[in-house]
Amino acid sequence: MPKTIKKIGVLTSGGDAPGMNAAIRSVVRTCAYHKIECVGVYRGYEGLMEGDFKSMNARSVKDIINKGGTILKSARSKEFRTVEGRKQAYNHIKNANIDALVLIGGDGTFTGGMIFNQEFDFPVIGIPGTIDNDIYGTSHTLGFDTALNTVVEAIDKIRDTASSHNRLFFIEVMGRDAGHIALNVGVGAGAEEILIPEEDMGLDRLVESLRRSRESGKTSSIVIVAEGDKIGKSVFELKDYVDENMEGYDVRVSVLGHMQRGGAPSCFDRVLASRMGVKAVESLLAGKTNYMVGLINGEIELTPLDSAIKGKSKINLELLRVSEIMST
Amino acid sequence: MPKTIKKIGVLTSGGDAPGMNAAIRSVVRTCAYHKIECVGVYRGYEGLMEGDFKSMNARSVKDIINKGGTILKSARSKEFRTVEGRKQAYNHIKNANIDALVLIGGDGTFTGGMIFNQEFDFPVIGIPGTIDNDIYGTSHTLGFDTALNTVVEAIDKIRDTASSHNRLFFIEVMGRDAGHIALNVGVGAGAEEILIPEEDMGLDRLVESLRRSRESGKTSSIVIVAEGDKIGKSVFELKDYVDENMEGYDVRVSVLGHMQRGGAPSCFDRVLASRMGVKAVESLLAGKTNYMVGLINGEIELTPLDSAIKGKSKINLELLRVSEIMST
Amino acid sequence: MPKTIKKIGVLTSGGDAPGMNAAIRSVVRTCAYHKIECVGVYRGYEGLMEGDFKSMNARSVKDIINKGGTILKSARSKEFRTVEGRKQAYNHIKNANIDALVLIGGDGTFTGGMIFNQEFDFPVIGIPGTIDNDIYGTSHTLGFDTALNTVVEAIDKIRDTASSHNRLFFIEVMGRDAGHIALNVGVGAGAEEILIPEEDMGLDRLVESLRRSRESGKTSSIVIVAEGDKIGKSVFELKDYVDENMEGYDVRVSVLGHMQRGGAPSCFDRVLASRMGVKAVESLLAGKTNYMVGLINGEIELTPLDSAIKGKSKINLELLRVSEIMST
Amino acid sequence: MPKTIKKIGVLTSGGDAPGMNAAIRSVVRTCAYHKIECVGVYRGYEGLMEGDFKSMNARSVKDIINKGGTILKSARSKEFRTVEGRKQAYNHIKNANIDALVLIGGDGTFTGGMIFNQEFDFPVIGIPGTIDNDIYGTSHTLGFDTALNTVVEAIDKIRDTASSHNRLFFIEVMGRDAGHIALNVGVGAGAEEILIPEEDMGLDRLVESLRRSRESGKTSSIVIVAEGDKIGKSVFELKDYVDENMEGYDVRVSVLGHMQRGGAPSCFDRVLASRMGVKAVESLLAGKTNYMVGLINGEIELTPLDSAIKGKSKINLELLRVSEIMST
Repeated sequence: MPKTIKKIGVLTSGGDAPGMNAAIRSVVRTCAYHKIECVGVYRGYEGLMEGDFKSMNARSVKDIINKGGTILKSARSKEFRTVEGRKQAYNHIKNANIDALVLIGGDGTFTGGMIFNQEFDFPVIGIPGTIDNDIYGTSHTLGFDTALNTVVEAIDKIRDTASSHNRLFFIEVMGRDAGHIALNVGVGAGAEEILIPEEDMGLDRLVESLRRSRESGKTSSIVIVAEGDKIGKSVFELKDYVDENMEGYDVRVSVLGHMQRGGAPSCFDRVLASRMGVKAVESLLAGKTNYMVGLINGEIELTPLDSAIKGKSKINLELLRVSEIMST
Repeated sequence: MPKTIKKIGVLTSGGDAPGMNAAIRSVVRTCAYHKIECVGVYRGYEGLMEGDFKSMNARSVKDIINKGGTILKSARSKEFRTVEGRKQAYNHIKNANIDALVLIGGDGTFTGGMIFNQEFDFPVIGIPGTIDNDIYGTSHTLGFDTALNTVVEAIDKIRDTASSHNRLFFIEVMGRDAGHIALNVGVGAGAEEILIPEEDMGLDRLVESLRRSRESGKTSSIVIVAEGDKIGKSVFELKDYVDENMEGYDVRVSVLGHMQRGGAPSCFDRVLASRMGVKAVESLLAGKTNYMVGLINGEIELTPLDSAIKGKSKINLELLRVSEIMST
Repeated sequence: MPKTIKKIGVLTSGGDAPGMNAAIRSVVRTCAYHKIECVGVYRGYEGLMEGDFKSMNARSVKDIINKGGTILKSARSKEFRTVEGRKQAYNHIKNANIDALVLIGGDGTFTGGMIFNQEFDFPVIGIPGTIDNDIYGTSHTLGFDTALNTVVEAIDKIRDTASSHNRLFFIEVMGRDAGHIALNVGVGAGAEEILIPEEDMGLDRLVESLRRSRESGKTSSIVIVAEGDKIGKSVFELKDYVDENMEGYDVRVSVLGHMQRGGAPSCFDRVLASRMGVKAVESLLAGKTNYMVGLINGEIELTPLDSAIKGKSKINLELLRVSEIMST
Repeated sequence: MPKTIKKIGVLTSGGDAPGMNAAIRSVVRTCAYHKIECVGVYRGYEGLMEGDFKSMNARSVKDIINKGGTILKSARSKEFRTVEGRKQAYNHIKNANIDALVLIGGDGTFTGGMIFNQEFDFPVIGIPGTIDNDIYGTSHTLGFDTALNTVVEAIDKIRDTASSHNRLFFIEVMGRDAGHIALNVGVGAGAEEILIPEEDMGLDRLVESLRRSRESGKTSSIVIVAEGDKIGKSVFELKDYVDENMEGYDVRVSVLGHMQRGGAPSCFDRVLASRMGVKAVESLLAGKTNYMVGLINGEIELTPLDSAIKGKSKINLELLRVSEIMST
């Protein structure tokens, strides 16, 4: 029979994402609601291995629902990948009488958590927090919706200057392995083309598409390029290619960078984080372990961590077609 | 056998909502993509009855994806509710060789469209556009997501002043018949209480809840009130009630009003509008009529207009529970 | 000879304004820079009379430069207007070894400070913080620039819906005694008319102006009304007047309310607050007292508190003319 | 005696800036107000040489006050630097019966205008529009205030992720020859250091400053680098330098790029643009020529184009000191 859970720890790990603070707040307050103690772990698995803990009550998470980043800080830990590191973490957890952990992060975070669960039979539940939306078992990860709005607003601004000068812009957005951001902001910002890791459009088709776009009367164009686009060219290389192979284009480049990760979360991300935090804590209290909470058809559901890690989050290829039609 | 569709009209009707322009753009460009003519109808059914039409091509909808409101303007029409009005509209449509209509709006818009379809056997497809999200057959109406962000940002600002002065604010948000906005922004902005049309919390419970909230150490509070809240008191009456019946509160009131309807659409609403426009036009081209397009479990699906009108869009009552837990 | 200043207290009083936190941060860090102690006083003069103090160092004001409201909280105090109240405050100050005070607020705050200075020969310097910009001795008060942007963004949203429905909107903005906000947002948002406390335009001229505006081809109109407009009618009464006396208008009303006070300060307000805080502390250290710091022709200058209180901040009437020309 | 002015042309040239559209609107409406004809010239001097003109009335500039970029488009023209190019432009102007020009742009724009004025004795007035604020004769150029807010909001977002991961960020902002943007956003975003073209801080002092900042307990840092900083290292080179010479820093780089140029103008820029447009047109009507309008001590004043071009806009070095104190 599982031990009754009286104290829950919560940490954020991996790249930070808007909504992480809202999720921390939800975990802490759901614990308070159920009269359970709650402990914040600083700097992800790093803090777990160092016992960098802080007792938290409902008032500790005041005024953070609308703050980007994570008040618990985040880190990527190499040491936690070793048996010694995890053993050390376990000792700190035991000393602090923590009975279960809520892990907010992405694939790497969940892999660490799953191994830890297996080694020490320690209850863990994951909350998917990453702007990349590349996690199986949830239609939306925390921070994805906010990042889309941040990026679309930045591109709207670039569009002003692109239109004023009749320019072609290659804009790099985040997404090393997944095209979710690129696809959605491409449609949302009215980009002429979208280059993503999942599909190889080929340079020739890109060139052809730009030519057609110009013939249709467009004087400026925006091409969205995911970091890990399949063509395998950076925005700078794409600019060079067009400069050398196409006449009459005034090409510019913009790499949006880290601003995509920050900012106040959207209402959607705040609500999602609040719901996920409640489900994570109440699942632990109900004896569940080794699951990830996720949004599936509008409901918060559990997916085994195992499947969440191994599964492949699919991009919505319909959006490529919509983008093509919209570029008419 | 249905007539081949060569020209499609598009109109916006009822209250305007962010994303309507993105939907118009999508309808126009999808027509262009399929080499179909497209005609914009001004001021909803009013313009339909007056033949206030404008031919539109792909370039006509340039730079509108990120604009609030509707370039086709909107109106509420009494005359279209009469047989004569609709007959007049039909004549203009025939003269202009319009073969089908895409109707962007809410319940009233769809009711008019369905009757028109029945009377003249004229193909129509609806796109749900309203910030209220009160339409059956879609998890999200156009403008709802944007309105949530607009409202949450406004409440974040009010929270600054509420916290600085240890005040209690009653904030009225839109929603005469539906609590979708109130529920989501209540959770998203961390409100202490949420009053909606669907549930009668009762004044006593509200008072009790405010007392508990204060005892837990909170110095400021925000209560979200939907226009049509079940308690049946306006924010001004609620303020008076607290002033008279509770000690030590410095109560203020804010009615957010029409700013909730405007603004650049969120990325979500732009993508949704783009997808819905494609589906609406392609459904008409495939011989479908009398349907509404909607988002169901992440996919764009068709629902008979009939069901969309009669069905009841349900609020997510789980959010009331989440809100209660978060107010710990 | 004045006593050497070793410890400075800082408080915020009156209505909160964006930039107050940035000013607190600047006062605290300037103290740290000059190796002076700094004490935060909570809830303005209320906290001064209760000895509600907190020692602050450079790290205490981390991450607040971009937060609306005031972390020291604010209040309006009746008791401080009595000799007993001020005596009580003085005792707390002496016990805490505070040698001087920086007072962030408006006219009322400065009046209290000046009397306190006279009664106890206690060094004080004021920093003008109010969104209303109604203080003599500074071209800009803290929060004014931010409020202008907040209001203009809200009106841009309302404009979307006004244009879509061909409506006339009366929009009430803050400004009980001063038209600074109304004048600037009126020009900035392209309003057709601006009603302010300083000028009586008269109902007839308003009606005439609306008629002319319509004849010039405009289909929607926005009229900005300061809370204390000279015509003496609320936006609701103005609506009733137009409804009764003018044909063919669809009139709506919006009262923007408290959201105008909050939000992250603009860059201008952050820079201004930082400069003012430095000047306030360094002026005290240089033996100055009973002054207000202010922005005059781009430089931070001192004005005797006396003059700041008695002087009348003038509105820029050129803007009324610009507005009239822009409404062509 | 100067010819009576009956028709005025307006163009935007050089890099686009928020507020240019508001200035165009103001020029057009001031012409309408004074019953003067107005002609928009497309793509700056390029369009002038090609006769790419469009007649504009008060309704032509509807709904553009809040749009970034320039509806008249902008370009940089080499040909206008030749006598032939200018002769060609003059012929088009004569054919179109244009009597005077309003030139919205920066130094290059004004130099072209001054030569044109000298060669053909043709009346011109300049309006300073550039985000860089590097023009003598005005405390603020159009777009500067908006750019500050855009940049500060982006840095606020980066700060979220910097704090969450205890990182050091080098952020490049616009300003090849002038540090106005860097200085103001550095203070406004609470940067630890600011590198500008006007002052050589030296690498050693930067390193020293970062060390001190860390010792004071700061866990994350942001350094603002103007494009043309005096140290002469790009943000990428600075990152490499720290990686090689300092221990324990997790350094990241962000180049904000073209998004700094776009977006809806701030209220300040809209009001400034409106005032400048009125002054430009009315100065021409009063027989003035070869001047630039500018904001001097809060008033719109004229400066000879000559002085505006030769003069050096000074940065406010007080801000460097404020920044140093704030970094305590």
